[in-house]
Amino acid sequence: MPQDDHDLTHPGGLTRLYVENPLSAGADIALGEAQTHFLAHVLRATAGDALRVFNGRDGEWRATVKSVAKRAVTLTLDRQTREQAGVPDLWLVLAPIKKTPLDYIVQKATELGIARLQPVITRRTIVERVNLDRMRANAIEAAEQSERLSVPDIAEPCDLTKLLSAWNPERQLMFCDEAAAAGGAVAVLAKTTPSPWAILTGPEGGFDPAEREMLRRQSFVVPVSLGPRIMRADTAALAALAIWQSTLGDWN
Amino acid sequence: MPQDDHDLTHPGGLTRLYVENPLSAGADIALGEAQTHFLAHVLRATAGDALRVFNGRDGEWRATVKSVAKRAVTLTLDRQTREQAGVPDLWLVLAPIKKTPLDYIVQKATELGIARLQPVITRRTIVERVNLDRMRANAIEAAEQSERLSVPDIAEPCDLTKLLSAWNPERQLMFCDEAAAAGGAVAVLAKTTPSPWAILTGPEGGFDPAEREMLRRQSFVVPVSLGPRIMRADTAALAALAIWQSTLGDWN
Repeated sequence: MPQDDHDLTHPGGLTRLYVENPLSAGADIALGEAQTHFLAHVLRATAGDALRVFNGRDGEWRATVKSVAKRAVTLTLDRQTREQAGVPDLWLVLAPIKKTPLDYIVQKATELGIARLQPVITRRTIVERVNLDRMRANAIEAAEQSERLSVPDIAEPCDLTKLLSAWNPERQLMFCDEAAAAGGAVAVLAKTTPSPWAILTGPEGGFDPAEREMLRRQSFVVPVSLGPRIMRADTAALAALAIWQSTLGDWN
Repeated sequence: MPQDDHDLTHPGGLTRLYVENPLSAGADIALGEAQTHFLAHVLRATAGDALRVFNGRDGEWRATVKSVAKRAVTLTLDRQTREQAGVPDLWLVLAPIKKTPLDYIVQKATELGIARLQPVITRRTIVERVNLDRMRANAIEAAEQSERLSVPDIAEPCDLTKLLSAWNPERQLMFCDEAAAAGGAVAVLAKTTPSPWAILTGPEGGFDPAEREMLRRQSFVVPVSLGPRIMRADTAALAALAIWQSTLGDWN
């Protein structure tokens, strides 16, 4: 795609924006306050500039800035540039951790192709309040920059016991258990049957013994090892995600 | 190991310190300025407190605080608690990125069990000055906290062309090439023969076409794919490391 001085670009190509509107040829989209500010004041967009938009349902579209007003930048949709494509049906069930690592993990999990992030409250969870708006903003930004066509769902936090009792047993749950013997992650995953999946990672202090026992009793829980060293919760989550994607996901 | 109120602990157990002295039963170790400050003022250590030390050669030792003076805390070594153990012979060759992501990647790569970090200067590398002292400090802290018995080597930065021309061809180099077709990382690694390894990741803007061509010509370069999405340089490096450890490393 040829780009001229008036196109809005980032290192990966034309700037991408996530919007909630339906997308179809010729439609106009009035952007909200934050995206208007970003286009008008950060990128200094003017009428005629090109960019890309996606909404998680209708693929990716090339759009042109129609007008830049004080209250709203309006775009016109030109044509579809990519058909809608999803990510594998993989969730990340994670105990919330301190603010910066959680921002980081939402961003990285989005880049690594997660479908849903499910905060879970465990006995040793220290951060009880989870800022879902902040998680969602991080997920949208990472989706825009990683060429995804969808934004991961951010689910409401749920207590671990409740989550397990309501769990659909057809969804296998990879449990990175650092406190007991388990097979190496790639070897264990390679032997499983196809299904939806989730990855579970604990809080800073790990799961308590009663939680670990409860987890190991569930038919859908698959314990795996991530090796002999102690990893931070965010490192373990990203390692597990990469291994799953490269073994069972869409990296092959 | 029973712990009492006077022991110096962190979430993983007794506090661990990396020192450069040789370790043997009964030996005294006078700590330097930074570790003296940490023990005396952050942990408020007093004589008799227990902790652990390692030096990358002599395993891990239990030590006791002998004296706390203004200029130096002195420890006495009690007994060896773990025999020396290394990590797999895996290097990470990485183009330096902005300060915070580089701190993060050094910390995470240490947790994931890297043996050496080799900064490499490529055509699109933006950050040309690399703070090796800062990288080393991050590596030591992560080694202390992740129960490693060694600290990764931090090599001097080197130009990519020079690095490749001096490369020992027996060391295979995993190249995460986002711009051309390659097999999925787990599948490709599973078919390789045993050898020392390194992982190569590029700068924010990726490798330029001439660099990619030069890399693909080398007999020791093994191109792999990390899937259809665009990842930041640090995400790609950590994903590649986790996949390598779980396929060829010590996570099985």
